Amino acid sequence: MAKDLKPKARLPRGLADRTGAELAATHAMLAKIRAVYALYGFEALETPAFEYTDALGKFLPDQDRPNAGVFSFQDDDEQWLSLRYDLTAPLARYVAEHFDALPKPYRSHRAGYVFRNEKPGPGRFRQFMQCDADTVGAPSVSADAEICMMAADALEAVGVPRGDFVIRVNNRKVLDGVLEAIGLGGEENAGRRLTVLRAIDKFDKFGVEGVALLLGTGRKDESGDFTKGAGLSERQAAVVLAMLTGAGVCADADGVKVELDGDVELAALLASNAAFLEGMAELNDIRMLVAAAGYEDRVKIDPSVVRGLEYYTGPVYEAELTFEIKDEAGRPVRFGSVAGGGRYDGLVARFRGEKVPATGFSIGVSRLLSALAALGKMDSDAEVGPVVVLTMDKEPSRIADYMKMVSDLRANGIRAEMYQGGGGMKAQMKYADKRGAPAVIIQGSNEKAAGEVQVKDLVEGAKIAASIADNAEYRAARPAQFAVKEEELVAAIRDVLERRAAPTLGLDD
Amino acid sequence: MAKDLKPKARLPRGLADRTGAELAATHAMLAKIRAVYALYGFEALETPAFEYTDALGKFLPDQDRPNAGVFSFQDDDEQWLSLRYDLTAPLARYVAEHFDALPKPYRSHRAGYVFRNEKPGPGRFRQFMQCDADTVGAPSVSADAEICMMAADALEAVGVPRGDFVIRVNNRKVLDGVLEAIGLGGEENAGRRLTVLRAIDKFDKFGVEGVALLLGTGRKDESGDFTKGAGLSERQAAVVLAMLTGAGVCADADGVKVELDGDVELAALLASNAAFLEGMAELNDIRMLVAAAGYEDRVKIDPSVVRGLEYYTGPVYEAELTFEIKDEAGRPVRFGSVAGGGRYDGLVARFRGEKVPATGFSIGVSRLLSALAALGKMDSDAEVGPVVVLTMDKEPSRIADYMKMVSDLRANGIRAEMYQGGGGMKAQMKYADKRGAPAVIIQGSNEKAAGEVQVKDLVEGAKIAASIADNAEYRAARPAQFAVKEEELVAAIRDVLERRAAPTLGLDD
Repeated sequence: MAKDLKPKARLPRGLADRTGAELAATHAMLAKIRAVYALYGFEALETPAFEYTDALGKFLPDQDRPNAGVFSFQDDDEQWLSLRYDLTAPLARYVAEHFDALPKPYRSHRAGYVFRNEKPGPGRFRQFMQCDADTVGAPSVSADAEICMMAADALEAVGVPRGDFVIRVNNRKVLDGVLEAIGLGGEENAGRRLTVLRAIDKFDKFGVEGVALLLGTGRKDESGDFTKGAGLSERQAAVVLAMLTGAGVCADADGVKVELDGDVELAALLASNAAFLEGMAELNDIRMLVAAAGYEDRVKIDPSVVRGLEYYTGPVYEAELTFEIKDEAGRPVRFGSVAGGGRYDGLVARFRGEKVPATGFSIGVSRLLSALAALGKMDSDAEVGPVVVLTMDKEPSRIADYMKMVSDLRANGIRAEMYQGGGGMKAQMKYADKRGAPAVIIQGSNEKAAGEVQVKDLVEGAKIAASIADNAEYRAARPAQFAVKEEELVAAIRDVLERRAAPTLGLDD
Repeated sequence: MAKDLKPKARLPRGLADRTGAELAATHAMLAKIRAVYALYGFEALETPAFEYTDALGKFLPDQDRPNAGVFSFQDDDEQWLSLRYDLTAPLARYVAEHFDALPKPYRSHRAGYVFRNEKPGPGRFRQFMQCDADTVGAPSVSADAEICMMAADALEAVGVPRGDFVIRVNNRKVLDGVLEAIGLGGEENAGRRLTVLRAIDKFDKFGVEGVALLLGTGRKDESGDFTKGAGLSERQAAVVLAMLTGAGVCADADGVKVELDGDVELAALLASNAAFLEGMAELNDIRMLVAAAGYEDRVKIDPSVVRGLEYYTGPVYEAELTFEIKDEAGRPVRFGSVAGGGRYDGLVARFRGEKVPATGFSIGVSRLLSALAALGKMDSDAEVGPVVVLTMDKEPSRIADYMKMVSDLRANGIRAEMYQGGGGMKAQMKYADKRGAPAVIIQGSNEKAAGEVQVKDLVEGAKIAASIADNAEYRAARPAQFAVKEEELVAAIRDVLERRAAPTLGLDD
């Protein structure tokens, strides 16, 4: 093979291989989340990895190529296909396709990889796993409240302790109403609205003062970087801040209350804004439902939740981990958002013309797994390495003996293998070590003649080695190596595994 | 939204949505297979859905577009990417990329979707799941024998009874040697070799006479369709048939024996062919190892196994289900192959220059699942539908009551939900029916005032309804509907579920 034709073995940017412990933990976590979703009455669904680009809502008719953000390719009939970028757009397609046959509401949960054709970065992958649940055909915010409570249950089920997370809930209609009331409605203000929303999103991080600066002229951070503000007047900014702090804008069973520190004019404008009033009433209903079910410590109304996706039309929610961990420099950091969602009444309508009210949320599986690892709650169950039978002799009949040994061990539920490589004794011991083997089994011609096998307890051996300074002494002692009759092999290995599992307090038999 | 811009909700050809029972069965099956792989000492690995096209070995430098068979697209740096078409090529990339860090041999198992840009058909999808295991860095056929035995264990673990499957083993070197000996070596005979291999592949189906025709002038099937033959001479065909039947070509511990009914010349040619001798000796070793481990009833040498993939270099194997089912027309059919694999010593070499001996196999997950379904062994555990609390009153405070009920049921491990749709009583009952709800819970204002709820046992109700002819009588009797105190709801529902689970023999309390 010509050297210059050899391809380089490498992954495209933003993709990752995953191995043992991480995969086992992912499977365990998904099973727990699925169990919660099922308990809530949701049904499993899985859609393919790719769809027609237009069905995903990504087709721009004025371009040759589907837009960026997704991975797209053409089918042999020239139609564009795209890898799914979330699990919501395919759900909308599925519901629209099978609308008449499905129960309504249609409640589904789905887990799978999604693909983003975006610039990858630390912790930002171009393929990552989501685990979603959605109720399609549910007009009332009781469905939103339910999903928020389910999100809380799911986080607890996978091991995030109560108190270490919060589901924060807001409503797009409230944000829209406030923006409209302060004169930022209309297509022409789309850019400024975005700047205001970005400022609101920073409330958690920068507080009232910081957001006030971002709503006004701008804010300089500690490093001296300047973020340009939205250029709101003080009166306009006051409305946004009143909503954020809840100081002058709130709702309860008696209705919505707006008091804006003497600004009667804007207060009246806001108090008569339909979207705002509807949004506030919905949030109040959610608050009431959550409290009635006893979830008020886990699901909280928070006017600073913005959420990025354009298709949200009502309540939006975000699961935030609130415990702190230390970064490499020892500074406390928060994991932040691990799941989010909201109401999207327009997504199925793309196919059907009529609106179909829907709400759902999505857990970022890898993100949540990292958080669990940081909490020491990752369900990894670090798999014990296999017992390795060394191949002292490569004669087929001896290989058959060795394979019979592993076969007996496996039949007794013991993870075991014969060394299948071509290396000598040193390579074989190195292999056993790399695999985390609890023991190796050795049978040369002398042992064979005596009907015996040598068992080398690698866990015990490592412990003893640590306590013996002298190398020659160690070799002479041959610690933790013993001979057993062939027919006692399984029992002997079982002993080794039990010693390994027991606390190291001299509990050996 | 303009009507003509509305996309049609549909899936591209050859893709499928998967729902509840199938997904649950798939997860259960994969868990069982993984447990077998782990017991054999294999480690989990997962690679991404796509790779650099050249890393998958699919790049043809003389074409603008990567070749057909795979789905390909360009990254933003113009490099070609392709969805993986199997789980072996990505493994080769992974091993080559991490060669120095990995234990050698490297034993991995992997499950995931693969993608084929091919014409779909009945049972032929463009996205389907495989579950593989491979030993990389294992030069000896003991690794092949091990994988064949593991395949047998995996099939039994998922529920295929012993006797209903066989792992058939052959060796590419034997086929290559025979073809060479009869003068079909060299690039110029590639086409004829393929025709001969296709004929051999039909041995199981057409027997000696059929294959003889396909090796010679051709064969006409019952419908009159003619398949052109390979055009071998009788002498040439006799060698192939001797190999297939084992009549004159076999190997045992004493070596390889070739007797070709008086054709001393060809017998000598074959008996001195290096590839043939090596292949036969390897098959004999496999046979011996399999017998020593007690798998000779499940793993059998079969000279008619061909396997399609070009990259196989030694032993090839195929898991075949041997039980018969009836097709729609009542004719007996076999499921055939559900898994296959072989030795591929050249795949990792593409990256590293030097050969890395490897062997592995792949289970077609969906295919195996269909077979289990046909055997009545699909582990579907048909999920019980959720208990549905009807929303008799949409007042937020009443909704809170209903949500409290489902919350109590869930806290007791009972799958339950409040009806989240906008429909009336009729729509709600229809919904409960469609979801397979075991019961619905009803609390209107009268029941609320009395501190009671009505429970409607839908399973019992359906049974009774079947035995009552008259519709009016049925309605008057209100069978299987009863009132319980609010605080007794959970216990009452538990009773309903227990009745449902119990055999219908009047075991009700």
